[in-house]
Amino acid sequence: MQQPVALEHASRLVNHGPTVLVTTAHGGRRNVMAAAWSMPVEFTPPRIAVVVDKATLTRELLVASGHFALCLPTPALADLCLAVGSDSGRDGDKFARHGVAATPGPVLGLPWIEGCSAWLELRRLPEPHAEQAYDTVFGEVVAAAADPRVFAGGRWSFRDDNADLHTLHHLGGGQFAVPSRVVQARR
Amino acid sequence: MQQPVALEHASRLVNHGPTVLVTTAHGGRRNVMAAAWSMPVEFTPPRIAVVVDKATLTRELLVASGHFALCLPTPALADLCLAVGSDSGRDGDKFARHGVAATPGPVLGLPWIEGCSAWLELRRLPEPHAEQAYDTVFGEVVAAAADPRVFAGGRWSFRDDNADLHTLHHLGGGQFAVPSRVVQARR
Repeated sequence: MQQPVALEHASRLVNHGPTVLVTTAHGGRRNVMAAAWSMPVEFTPPRIAVVVDKATLTRELLVASGHFALCLPTPALADLCLAVGSDSGRDGDKFARHGVAATPGPVLGLPWIEGCSAWLELRRLPEPHAEQAYDTVFGEVVAAAADPRVFAGGRWSFRDDNADLHTLHHLGGGQFAVPSRVVQARR
Repeated sequence: MQQPVALEHASRLVNHGPTVLVTTAHGGRRNVMAAAWSMPVEFTPPRIAVVVDKATLTRELLVASGHFALCLPTPALADLCLAVGSDSGRDGDKFARHGVAATPGPVLGLPWIEGCSAWLELRRLPEPHAEQAYDTVFGEVVAAAADPRVFAGGRWSFRDDNADLHTLHHLGGGQFAVPSRVVQARR
């Protein structure tokens, strides 16, 4: 279930450090990989940094097209995260190999993967030095959406009754923490 | 309870996107602020990026000294995260104001805050452009430690019996998700 998220709330989608699936497309090829390392760098305009190794097909397609998308996988997609984090799109289309269903994002037409809880489309902000030295790619969000059962009014709401829509946070070796408990700080 | 963490495991400490407390010290002044936005960028050598606004005292002390520390707060420190994320060290020492207890880190002597579940000391990797354009500071870890009841053998272990040592993941407005459930992906 997809509902648009206002751009001023887009950085909130990755504020709490979820693992993301990075999708790209260029020249008739498309790809998907898992990335544990991303963070917002600005709320307005919404900007996000993500680490994409320079050896990957994702990096090649991202730089060639100037675009990428981020999809936030749910617990049912944990196996997929491990799979697409381990093999390469250079060995054949990963969407077909892993049976990944996707619909086109609204602005750039990039693959938004079904069964996720949130989605973003971004334009690359070219930063050749950071990309080379730290594999760190910066992008500006141009479209965002989320499943309204778990993200509404600009805020995540993790509850027992929507546990199948919670985000994944990679601990290593295919083990993911799921943020199922919530603490409210007091002033 | 602090136990050294091997440097090759240091990036794992922030792999899952926790909120951190950034501490700094220079010329007789010290400071602490909360940062929701950080990520590893490399395992070996262990390197981490963190967003520190250029207007903050933390940024001033960080650049002047070339050093900073990251401490991973536990649920009992949620109120402190909100407090030190809201006020400025320019209005007086925040450690004293908020009753923050800290011990010196082993290599740089930076404040490691008691009651956290993990700690890192880092040397700044000077990147003036990324710091200016994205408030993104890169650092290399020179020392790391964790509470062995929740991080051992290079891996977090979030269980019911150590729930008071789990990490915090900021959702916004002082609300934090806590990664209390774990999913193991299968190949």
